[in-house]
Amino acid sequence: MKVNRDYKQVIIVRQDLGMSQGKKVAQACHASVSAVLEAKKHNISDFNTWIRGGQKKVALKIRSEEDLNTLFHKAKDMRLPCSIIRDAGLTQLEPGTKTAVAIGPGKSSEIDKITGDLKLL
Amino acid sequence: MKVNRDYKQVIIVRQDLGMSQGKKVAQACHASVSAVLEAKKHNISDFNTWIRGGQKKVALKIRSEEDLNTLFHKAKDMRLPCSIIRDAGLTQLEPGTKTAVAIGPGKSSEIDKITGDLKLL
Repeated sequence: MKVNRDYKQVIIVRQDLGMSQGKKVAQACHASVSAVLEAKKHNISDFNTWIRGGQKKVALKIRSEEDLNTLFHKAKDMRLPCSIIRDAGLTQLEPGTKTAVAIGPGKSSEIDKITGDLKLL
Repeated sequence: MKVNRDYKQVIIVRQDLGMSQGKKVAQACHASVSAVLEAKKHNISDFNTWIRGGQKKVALKIRSEEDLNTLFHKAKDMRLPCSIIRDAGLTQLEPGTKTAVAIGPGKSSEIDKITGDLKLL
């Protein structure tokens, strides 16, 4: 399948918490699934275009809860599907610690406006 | 929210491919989302129980394509929602390389029958 790069989802994970690789993967998947289900409910056209185009995903890193919050609120303001994850605190972290954000699926050009300066995970 | 541990999704990622952390996260999210969408379509009761219970996820590792294939077919045989990911090959890997499998959401006791011997990622 030829991947449609015009639509994507970005998943942003905090790097300052000392999470294990497996913990990061689980948190990223929480964020990804939650934002996808939101898009399926409220942005069905973008959701369908993205799914049919190979559901491009990019994982990025961020270095503080403050930066994660700021990014989440920017995405909300742009009405992009987005989800912020608070860890249940069963392992490794304090309950309620914000660990990851997913933005999209949506237009890559829109998502890049607020995530373009973040580095690959 | 109290997490319901009786239902979960496991995401299994290959460790023998030399994938970067970000690549592993993206492949895991592909698998997770695909299996969740399958469950939403075909196993709505398990899907709802899992979502309401905090969508428990566990990331595990596996060491070969053969083991990944075997696991996927066992999950299929048990009629668990599951998804195997073939990389599009745009970065790092050859096109079609199988990278990850997600199994569930489903009953933890069922999923453990085929994944109980795998280690945390």
